[in-house]
Amino acid sequence: MEKDFGSFKNILIIGLGLIGGSLALSLKKEGFKGKIYGYDLNEDRVKTALNMKAVDEGFRYLDDIPWDKVDLVILATPVKTFESIAKQIKPFLKPETVVSDVGSVKGELIEKLSDILKPNVFVGVHPIAGTEKEGIENAVIGLFKDAKVILTPTEENEKVKRVAKLWRDLGSKVEVMDPHLHDFVFASVSHLPHAVAFALVDALIALSKESGIDLFQYPGGGFKDFTRIAASSPTVWKDIFLENREYVIHTIDEFMKSLKKLKNYIEEEKQEELVELLSESREKRLSLD
Amino acid sequence: MEKDFGSFKNILIIGLGLIGGSLALSLKKEGFKGKIYGYDLNEDRVKTALNMKAVDEGFRYLDDIPWDKVDLVILATPVKTFESIAKQIKPFLKPETVVSDVGSVKGELIEKLSDILKPNVFVGVHPIAGTEKEGIENAVIGLFKDAKVILTPTEENEKVKRVAKLWRDLGSKVEVMDPHLHDFVFASVSHLPHAVAFALVDALIALSKESGIDLFQYPGGGFKDFTRIAASSPTVWKDIFLENREYVIHTIDEFMKSLKKLKNYIEEEKQEELVELLSESREKRLSLD
Repeated sequence: MEKDFGSFKNILIIGLGLIGGSLALSLKKEGFKGKIYGYDLNEDRVKTALNMKAVDEGFRYLDDIPWDKVDLVILATPVKTFESIAKQIKPFLKPETVVSDVGSVKGELIEKLSDILKPNVFVGVHPIAGTEKEGIENAVIGLFKDAKVILTPTEENEKVKRVAKLWRDLGSKVEVMDPHLHDFVFASVSHLPHAVAFALVDALIALSKESGIDLFQYPGGGFKDFTRIAASSPTVWKDIFLENREYVIHTIDEFMKSLKKLKNYIEEEKQEELVELLSESREKRLSLD
Repeated sequence: MEKDFGSFKNILIIGLGLIGGSLALSLKKEGFKGKIYGYDLNEDRVKTALNMKAVDEGFRYLDDIPWDKVDLVILATPVKTFESIAKQIKPFLKPETVVSDVGSVKGELIEKLSDILKPNVFVGVHPIAGTEKEGIENAVIGLFKDAKVILTPTEENEKVKRVAKLWRDLGSKVEVMDPHLHDFVFASVSHLPHAVAFALVDALIALSKESGIDLFQYPGGGFKDFTRIAASSPTVWKDIFLENREYVIHTIDEFMKSLKKLKNYIEEEKQEELVELLSESREKRLSLD
């Protein structure tokens, strides 16, 4: 099918960070012909976006944006800001303008945003792509190519299809998922691992203090790979943890059960059970490669 | 200084797995001129070692080994077997033969081995190198090049210096550490992360069962990197966890404290404390790159 990016004419990206910037650059690289407008509260980020030619026009004030030309708005700020931004932009939107996002939390948030924005259609989108870096200066052209992109629409709609087409034209593999299911799945496979990585580094800071030895001098044994994601943006992750609080807590509890079980096998020297747990984990992990 | 590999004439490697095999191949590659004998209970491994030309002669029975020619024995089996092997080989050793190892646990184990082997000198060695693969067929030539190699001698001794020289001639960076301190440090930076990775995969298996969704279909968000070490050998890791039990339990407890703190910040929506914890972990992690 011909690349038409869902027939959106001009796109406004709100939030010029790593993901917003990568999206803008990737749209241009893949041949999107319309204008890309960028909005950010931070003047430096707007300037950088303009210098990098990620956006055609950059704005710091909502009033300045040519809203009559915008038919797709994409929220690319930390998820905690979505509600407030939706309320602020609502008065400016043409009725046919679609609002979408690239956030990692869906569920109730999506329902709230849909309510706020009605009658405008909101289409929740979560691209499974990113790096542990932050900032538009670390934007990656082609970040979404071959990446899974999860759509969590609350209604079937022609506008949902257009948003799906836009991502497919960027080379992404689009998948549709219930917003609550999405939050459970990503609490498990992404938010929990991040929580664990942050906590692991925190524990090593505490163990270093306790012993007077800088344990970070000895980053062997997979530790660097393992904690790479602990270098992720604190603001982004604070928001994700809080917005997806219930599922994150549930998966942390489940993980603690597994770790307590493993600890018990070690403490009680239950060799057989220990080997069984390690072998099952190993097999499951190997099956991913 | 000239490469003399500590002036050892012929080396016996006990245990022809990934580490034993990589050591044999690396010695040959770096120009070790003596014979390398290999011993393993498993006939296939002995054959593979011979086929790969990792060892000059391979043995399945201790009686068959030309002990009068061996002046260095290196234990490269899972650590739980060290005591039993030390007792078995003791009657065969010439008095000047040095016994060493490549195990990940030192501490009391080293003291026991030194006692068993007296008057032969035992020199504890832990090369900080490896992969999550296992078996001699996955051996890596040059695995120890530029790797940290920790020596944990219980006495100062000319033989310790010779073992250090051997590793330096393989291109490793030799460091000396107290055996107990070693166990605390590696419980923290290696054994704990492995325990956490195994437990994380175990939790995801449980969460998949609970929800009826195969969560392993969605390995985004750093999950694959994060759990790579959960593919490590169950036998090797069962032994490490049990042999270094006390420190491993202590670091798991410390990690659980950190995770509970993080969970509490999320539950109580303590935004400031949450950002502070994430930022400290991030900074510390970034400082490693």
